[in-house]
Amino acid sequence: MTFHSMWAELLPIGRSSASGGYRRFAWTGADVDCRAWFKEQAESRGLAYEVDRNGNQWAWLGDPAAGDAVVTGSHLDSVPDGGAFDGPLGVVSSFAALDELRARGAVFDRPFAVVNFGDEEGARFGLACVGSRLTSGQLTLETAHRLTGADGVTLPQAMEAAGYDPDAIGADPERLGRIGAFVELHVEQGRALDLSADPVGVASAIWPHGRWRFDFRGEANHAGTTRLVDRRDPMLSYAETVLAARREAERVGAVATFGKLAVEPNGVNAIPSLVRGWLDSRAADQERLDTVVGGIEKAARAYADTYGVELDVVRESFTPVVEFDHALRDELARILGKDTGLTVPVLGTGAGHDAGILSASIPTAMLFVRNPTGVSHSPAEQAAEDDCLAGVTALADVLEGLVGR
Amino acid sequence: MTFHSMWAELLPIGRSSASGGYRRFAWTGADVDCRAWFKEQAESRGLAYEVDRNGNQWAWLGDPAAGDAVVTGSHLDSVPDGGAFDGPLGVVSSFAALDELRARGAVFDRPFAVVNFGDEEGARFGLACVGSRLTSGQLTLETAHRLTGADGVTLPQAMEAAGYDPDAIGADPERLGRIGAFVELHVEQGRALDLSADPVGVASAIWPHGRWRFDFRGEANHAGTTRLVDRRDPMLSYAETVLAARREAERVGAVATFGKLAVEPNGVNAIPSLVRGWLDSRAADQERLDTVVGGIEKAARAYADTYGVELDVVRESFTPVVEFDHALRDELARILGKDTGLTVPVLGTGAGHDAGILSASIPTAMLFVRNPTGVSHSPAEQAAEDDCLAGVTALADVLEGLVGR
Repeated sequence: MTFHSMWAELLPIGRSSASGGYRRFAWTGADVDCRAWFKEQAESRGLAYEVDRNGNQWAWLGDPAAGDAVVTGSHLDSVPDGGAFDGPLGVVSSFAALDELRARGAVFDRPFAVVNFGDEEGARFGLACVGSRLTSGQLTLETAHRLTGADGVTLPQAMEAAGYDPDAIGADPERLGRIGAFVELHVEQGRALDLSADPVGVASAIWPHGRWRFDFRGEANHAGTTRLVDRRDPMLSYAETVLAARREAERVGAVATFGKLAVEPNGVNAIPSLVRGWLDSRAADQERLDTVVGGIEKAARAYADTYGVELDVVRESFTPVVEFDHALRDELARILGKDTGLTVPVLGTGAGHDAGILSASIPTAMLFVRNPTGVSHSPAEQAAEDDCLAGVTALADVLEGLVGR
Repeated sequence: MTFHSMWAELLPIGRSSASGGYRRFAWTGADVDCRAWFKEQAESRGLAYEVDRNGNQWAWLGDPAAGDAVVTGSHLDSVPDGGAFDGPLGVVSSFAALDELRARGAVFDRPFAVVNFGDEEGARFGLACVGSRLTSGQLTLETAHRLTGADGVTLPQAMEAAGYDPDAIGADPERLGRIGAFVELHVEQGRALDLSADPVGVASAIWPHGRWRFDFRGEANHAGTTRLVDRRDPMLSYAETVLAARREAERVGAVATFGKLAVEPNGVNAIPSLVRGWLDSRAADQERLDTVVGGIEKAARAYADTYGVELDVVRESFTPVVEFDHALRDELARILGKDTGLTVPVLGTGAGHDAGILSASIPTAMLFVRNPTGVSHSPAEQAAEDDCLAGVTALADVLEGLVGR
């Protein structure tokens, strides 16, 4: 099955006809359909299919127990109304690269696998990279069992409904210990490759990043009859904080975004009792990130005082800077540059990935495919088919260099 | 059945144990339970119970066809997490006032009814006073049939599920033509009576008020990888507009509130594509309301330009100033003042009511009962039991004066 036909099979799954974007949330019907597709791809290629204790899917060539395996893959779930490429491009390219290696008659001296990590985006339960965090021991069963979606359904309930055993989840050091290298191909989520006119690049590092929940609590009251001076309206302190976040991020040279919000009681004629906003912030280094988030929190506390509302700030997740394995990164750049003699661009990124989580346990690397507009997490996310195919070739080159060693 | 025991029966219906507030939304189970309670109260008093074509409930004493009827009542539905008094106090006081009139041996020279108007708060379908608007012809069947809640359920679907016929709804001039006076008792939703130390007051006018939907449309994108300069983030223009609304309302001496919000895709790591905020604004007169809403819209358009987002502003509902019937208002003040010799406070209000809607068709008046904190549309809404009983006595006095004429 060609890249093109694999891509065409995935395209309709979980696509909203209203927005044109994808709603492939962990353990929902759309996710289950994507998983069935993965299993078919594995079996149609004669690969040994298995699901690990955390619901991640694996398709093996050779005996994993031999160790020092080369693994490639990404994820199939999406953010709300996400694009087609973020995640699936890596999984489809992995199978296509294997097909190309077989067509080239490549020798596999090391075990090889394609992987689909579960719940990478965290769209449903608010925590990203759940599958890889569990496997690497960065998320415990106890914490995972408390994860709850906006619909009130907990992660264990959702896993069980999809036919998985939520009591089996947890760290899997033996599995990780058998992997010698993990390479994840991903559509770029910025414009660096577009600006440098390169179809493919290699990742250097992932910026440190985190999510903070800002709960502004005021007093619900009638919007028509409550005098302005009698109000304790949390929407005002929230609005001031949104603008402060932009100013701080500009000043420090970082990014800061309030993209998710919950309002109670959320009635047109009611002053809110609660405005809960989630801050996503990232910077090139830890010091800058501390500065920008510290500045935002300080401003938010001052605004809360001004408007007579209470403020709680909770750090919901945090990932320190990830420097990808230098030896593996240099090897990728060498392999990709060897035919052309050109230097392959090596770039940092503000996006989190399973490869970033796993880099704490095993050597990992990433390839990026050019995104002509830089738009991501949106139905408008794009990549040219030629660039996708260049990505498959690059991934095949890299994997051939690794498995044949 | 005493005021106290009627009140105790209603208290648990539709109360959220989480918030302590009420969620009695039109045609839901809690609303249906409130309606069953109304029917019981009517029948236990030997009143003729009927439901009109718009789902409003009536309990008649005497023959409505005789005309020039005196009607009192309010509503039983609530805003999200509303208080116990807004609406139910008027209905319970109406039955209690009838009991007092009978105990006094009052003579009923005119037909008399207690009414419960459906969907007063508009919490479910976004339009307030649906029952009274339909009956008075201010809302057509066609428009009502297009009303849709956040859960995607339309008003006709909701009515049908509750056992009502949505195709029967519409103007009911014959019914209104038989009513000579409508009096609605309501908890005050501000602090005027508290500040003047009066348990009961009479309404003079309802401020003109409306709801405007502000749709800020930008571009969804990845919160970690999109440079600040490349963003078209609608949350920023929304935040600026929230603050502009407060400034304009302060400047003009009006109220303006953004209390309801919808964000798409509403993901922590996604710049929003859409921020939709609802503005509720009210002022003592039309000129001031035009000034404040015009000022907010002008500011919002400038901010939309600044941040590169599109803005649509839609007026979703509007109610002009309501001057209650002067003759009826003066009669109420005379009746209430006659025993004490004191002047009864006459006050304007920023809140909309069924009495305001009906005032375009028939003579209407309102009584307010003191609210010690002014808090309303909140679980913290309060009224002292003594004040509630003073309200019942005042309503009985007023009704006795009207029915015995």
